[in-house]
Amino acid sequence: MTLRFGVIGTGAIGREHIKRISNKLAGGKIVAVTDVNQASAQDAVKSFELDAVVYPNDLALLAADNVDAVLVTSWGPAHEASVLAAIEAGKFVFVEKPLATTAEGCMRIVEAEMKHGKRLVQVGFMRRYDSGYVQLKEAIKNNFIGEPLMIRAAHRNPEVGENYTTDMAIHDTLIHEIDVLHWLVNDDYQTVQVAYPKKSKHAHENLKDPQIVTLETKGGIVITAEINVNCKYGYDIQCEVIGEEGIVSLPEFQSISFRKNAMFGTHVLMDWKDRFIDAYDKELQDFMDSIKKTGEPNGPTSWDGYIAQVTADAAIKAQDSGEKETITLQEKPVFYSKPTEAVNA
Amino acid sequence: MTLRFGVIGTGAIGREHIKRISNKLAGGKIVAVTDVNQASAQDAVKSFELDAVVYPNDLALLAADNVDAVLVTSWGPAHEASVLAAIEAGKFVFVEKPLATTAEGCMRIVEAEMKHGKRLVQVGFMRRYDSGYVQLKEAIKNNFIGEPLMIRAAHRNPEVGENYTTDMAIHDTLIHEIDVLHWLVNDDYQTVQVAYPKKSKHAHENLKDPQIVTLETKGGIVITAEINVNCKYGYDIQCEVIGEEGIVSLPEFQSISFRKNAMFGTHVLMDWKDRFIDAYDKELQDFMDSIKKTGEPNGPTSWDGYIAQVTADAAIKAQDSGEKETITLQEKPVFYSKPTEAVNA
Amino acid sequence: MTLRFGVIGTGAIGREHIKRISNKLAGGKIVAVTDVNQASAQDAVKSFELDAVVYPNDLALLAADNVDAVLVTSWGPAHEASVLAAIEAGKFVFVEKPLATTAEGCMRIVEAEMKHGKRLVQVGFMRRYDSGYVQLKEAIKNNFIGEPLMIRAAHRNPEVGENYTTDMAIHDTLIHEIDVLHWLVNDDYQTVQVAYPKKSKHAHENLKDPQIVTLETKGGIVITAEINVNCKYGYDIQCEVIGEEGIVSLPEFQSISFRKNAMFGTHVLMDWKDRFIDAYDKELQDFMDSIKKTGEPNGPTSWDGYIAQVTADAAIKAQDSGEKETITLQEKPVFYSKPTEAVNA
Amino acid sequence: MTLRFGVIGTGAIGREHIKRISNKLAGGKIVAVTDVNQASAQDAVKSFELDAVVYPNDLALLAADNVDAVLVTSWGPAHEASVLAAIEAGKFVFVEKPLATTAEGCMRIVEAEMKHGKRLVQVGFMRRYDSGYVQLKEAIKNNFIGEPLMIRAAHRNPEVGENYTTDMAIHDTLIHEIDVLHWLVNDDYQTVQVAYPKKSKHAHENLKDPQIVTLETKGGIVITAEINVNCKYGYDIQCEVIGEEGIVSLPEFQSISFRKNAMFGTHVLMDWKDRFIDAYDKELQDFMDSIKKTGEPNGPTSWDGYIAQVTADAAIKAQDSGEKETITLQEKPVFYSKPTEAVNA
Repeated sequence: MTLRFGVIGTGAIGREHIKRISNKLAGGKIVAVTDVNQASAQDAVKSFELDAVVYPNDLALLAADNVDAVLVTSWGPAHEASVLAAIEAGKFVFVEKPLATTAEGCMRIVEAEMKHGKRLVQVGFMRRYDSGYVQLKEAIKNNFIGEPLMIRAAHRNPEVGENYTTDMAIHDTLIHEIDVLHWLVNDDYQTVQVAYPKKSKHAHENLKDPQIVTLETKGGIVITAEINVNCKYGYDIQCEVIGEEGIVSLPEFQSISFRKNAMFGTHVLMDWKDRFIDAYDKELQDFMDSIKKTGEPNGPTSWDGYIAQVTADAAIKAQDSGEKETITLQEKPVFYSKPTEAVNA
Repeated sequence: MTLRFGVIGTGAIGREHIKRISNKLAGGKIVAVTDVNQASAQDAVKSFELDAVVYPNDLALLAADNVDAVLVTSWGPAHEASVLAAIEAGKFVFVEKPLATTAEGCMRIVEAEMKHGKRLVQVGFMRRYDSGYVQLKEAIKNNFIGEPLMIRAAHRNPEVGENYTTDMAIHDTLIHEIDVLHWLVNDDYQTVQVAYPKKSKHAHENLKDPQIVTLETKGGIVITAEINVNCKYGYDIQCEVIGEEGIVSLPEFQSISFRKNAMFGTHVLMDWKDRFIDAYDKELQDFMDSIKKTGEPNGPTSWDGYIAQVTADAAIKAQDSGEKETITLQEKPVFYSKPTEAVNA
Repeated sequence: MTLRFGVIGTGAIGREHIKRISNKLAGGKIVAVTDVNQASAQDAVKSFELDAVVYPNDLALLAADNVDAVLVTSWGPAHEASVLAAIEAGKFVFVEKPLATTAEGCMRIVEAEMKHGKRLVQVGFMRRYDSGYVQLKEAIKNNFIGEPLMIRAAHRNPEVGENYTTDMAIHDTLIHEIDVLHWLVNDDYQTVQVAYPKKSKHAHENLKDPQIVTLETKGGIVITAEINVNCKYGYDIQCEVIGEEGIVSLPEFQSISFRKNAMFGTHVLMDWKDRFIDAYDKELQDFMDSIKKTGEPNGPTSWDGYIAQVTADAAIKAQDSGEKETITLQEKPVFYSKPTEAVNA
Repeated sequence: MTLRFGVIGTGAIGREHIKRISNKLAGGKIVAVTDVNQASAQDAVKSFELDAVVYPNDLALLAADNVDAVLVTSWGPAHEASVLAAIEAGKFVFVEKPLATTAEGCMRIVEAEMKHGKRLVQVGFMRRYDSGYVQLKEAIKNNFIGEPLMIRAAHRNPEVGENYTTDMAIHDTLIHEIDVLHWLVNDDYQTVQVAYPKKSKHAHENLKDPQIVTLETKGGIVITAEINVNCKYGYDIQCEVIGEEGIVSLPEFQSISFRKNAMFGTHVLMDWKDRFIDAYDKELQDFMDSIKKTGEPNGPTSWDGYIAQVTADAAIKAQDSGEKETITLQEKPVFYSKPTEAVNA
């Protein structure tokens, strides 16, 4: 059985996923594409030699009988409408972050999905498929370090462009930590606070960088997350979970080691696109496999998308207020309570 | 375009590849299977829900028009005949090691392939697709460490069964180092010598373990390779290339790090099957992609299979004689001189 | 020239220093001892076969002409009086922390020393002599990482006794970070805040453990220091300085590495006494050498003792209030402005 | 009690030891010096402000009643005569390598010392006092890795001068591995063989570099030692002991770690003098302490000096012959059988 995809949005990330499904993964096929820029949609079909129909818009594409699932890779503000329409049409949805640009929007999707009666939506939080995070999750679940008490995370980019603004440190950067860390410890966030250390001279005029975000969970875990998007030396993702019996940490990115020029070391990535390349493959393969095996996707849910949005909103508020802000989540529906375990993780 | 495979040999490794092509990789399909044990072939079709015909033998399978390529995963002594028949039929061949069980057999395949006029055969030396070795190769090619002078390698298994004999240290274990190391430094072997350190108490009565194999290349590189198949602590593959300007080494297998019980460390694999799992995927994906893009496979060639066999034979001789034995290769045909660079490495 | 020491306080730490000066370091000699417990003083002379006079109290000892310097290793509340008397007598003083138990007491010593006209006092903050911290300091001074922006520190003990109280996390544990970190970045503290993550089940009933202390410097550096005195796995001191161009971190404690039982790792210390053993030697050797070469000790000054006390007091207040507390230091006298660089570092 | 030293040879290494004993260690004092260059001896007294007599030669110095022990730090060919004279005079001897320049010379010292009736001589093989080697020794003794089967060692220098000849790779470089490795595994050498890999372009015309020396012990341990004195990247000493249950390795030299310029690493020493600086201190402190506590030095003995010389001679022969050469040691006298355990290790 082949899962037939429609692609809504044929920009850079849409094309990455088209390539993945066409040339690298098993069990999927692109049969339909659309983009607000129709020329882009047509070009994608041609470039990847797809046997796919170009549709004028998402609704037309969703009406096609041969479309089993959609990839929503349009720009963020368009996600909510496409996802709601897909649910309405009963199609599976793999949607890049954000699920919606507001908490209310996310909640509308949650409610639509619950009304539909089974899970259709997976949000593209790929870190849950990264081998390092999977090992951390496993270690915690196996009680290897006892109860988690603290987490130290860092999200570092060598540099960012002039268009990167202070709030993007939350919405575009920290958002991945927000998703993966509550999943890691199976807990919910309660408060968030943001501190601004001395500003790096490499940060452009209007950007506050670095930032330190402190999150507390309902269970009392304190998470200290450094966002540092002009760190110069590399793209570096760190995560250390400190438990009652010991500590586990993400591995460094796998590089040969070298001894040269009075140094012994490894290479650090400079390009973020290389860091989670395996995780991107795995999340999409798992999306397809889970649907085939269980009739539902098993990755990050609409509810996870809602959590990310509510948490990010509170963090943005904390950026402005300097105060500890409360994160107020609605009660988790039973619908979303069954564990989401990747089939292929 | 889908590459349609026939599988000759539906034992454990054959089934691994069937699963890979059916469920994990893009662009291939199993359309035919055979096995000396027909029940096994039928079971494979059933187990993996293949849309494939069961043939009575390799020749019948090779006669099928819809078979583009074969996987030769039968037992070693049967490889040569199947590969020769496949070449005769003009089918692409992915054959697990050994290409043939004798140097003469390998040479017959080389000659048949040259007569055919283009490369059809890829030998399953998967290490060339391992990210660590690929990085080492890249570093050497980029002159990062200058000319290579020495290599220190280790191939360690936690333990082996009673049926593992002293010569298998060469044919089953060192064979992977034999293939990957000459590729790494783009050089040919000249001599081989074997030393037996103090025997491990964990080695069974008739097994000499560990062994130290010293290989010299025509260019003067000295390779010291430890084979240690009762090392107890883990499955561990090490490779350090010492050059004129510096040293590069394989990374440790990627594990989370931990601090616990007065230790700071990482986990070491105990099961060899987990070590090169990505490389197995990549070699088959590359086999398919290369054929589609260039009309030929680009991985380890029949000539590489021949080199491995001649070198292993000399090493076996050196195991018995205790002397430095010469490795005598025929001159490399121009046919095999074009670089074999993985398309997807 | 031999520096002749009187020892005020012959408990455990006093005896460690007596051994050091008598048996391990060059240029010093114990000529006088006293203790509120006279039997202890006599026993010390006997145990270490000292050629030393036992005095009834610190004042009598300080009156001895042949005493050049004193080691103040009595209990904390007695330090201030002994140090003031030593300054009055014009003797050099090596005093274990705390310099005095109150900020006012420290300030009285500062003023007495300034009145005396040259530096006599060194406080026993040994970390400044640890090879790892010395390398960090050097790297920062050489602009290897640009301007420091953040520091992540951790102070972990495997466990503590029932008598260890929440405030001791500041006065006995964090006090070392307080001293060494402002020295490292050559900056002064401005605020301090304390957070309490989920409590470890290994912490006894009245102890809040772990704690996260956040210090901000006048220059804007944000320091996040974890105190975790029931971490179980080892005695572990970590310090990572994040600068504009890169990051430097303390080395792990030097251990052989091992591969065993499916692990690759190093040993972590369980006993804090082994961690800074070289630093204890070096601080005392430097005290003696500096006095001989420059007429003054060059280690941590009375002013550093004052800074530590004021900062610790604010941190204690922050433990109770949960708020960000201000650290208010008097203006640094020119007298203490000359850099204190260890002669032997 | 102070051990009063006479120094025979006031060149670079003699002066290092003079400084050490005068300014850094406890319990020793330089009271006499001599040098074939009398001006050098006088200058040493002046430079280090020694309260010491300059003698015209070693015999005159040895006749001085106030000399308890001598440091023999003259050039190698003069060692034997001075050591024999010191034994004759009943003085303790700390002699830098070589004990004597021939095996026969070493044996004459062994016999003289046995005739004297107690150990007087310690040879300056400082690695036995290095913390890393001490930990390896401890691990092996505690059966942490079971029986040792193989050792992989490397001795790398960034570069050497024009006057460094092929045989010096044995006498000056490998000599330290020769001493420390048999001590480590408590075994004796049996054979030695030397291989020459491809020559480094950085080696000057008459120097064969790198070299690989293979030593076998009587117990069957195979040691592979790389000598690589133009490795460019640093001064690097490696030692890995592979046992039946696991592996232990020397730590890297202790350096802060850094993340910078797309790299994560540590610094490697460029200057060999920094590598064993603590071991030099400890060997001399132990020499003094052992004599005081036990009446004899406890470090490397005359017999160890003899082993080193015999082994080095066989290795030189192996350099020329290309063959496996036998190492023939006389039977170890009971006199030297008592374990030599450093008092302060």
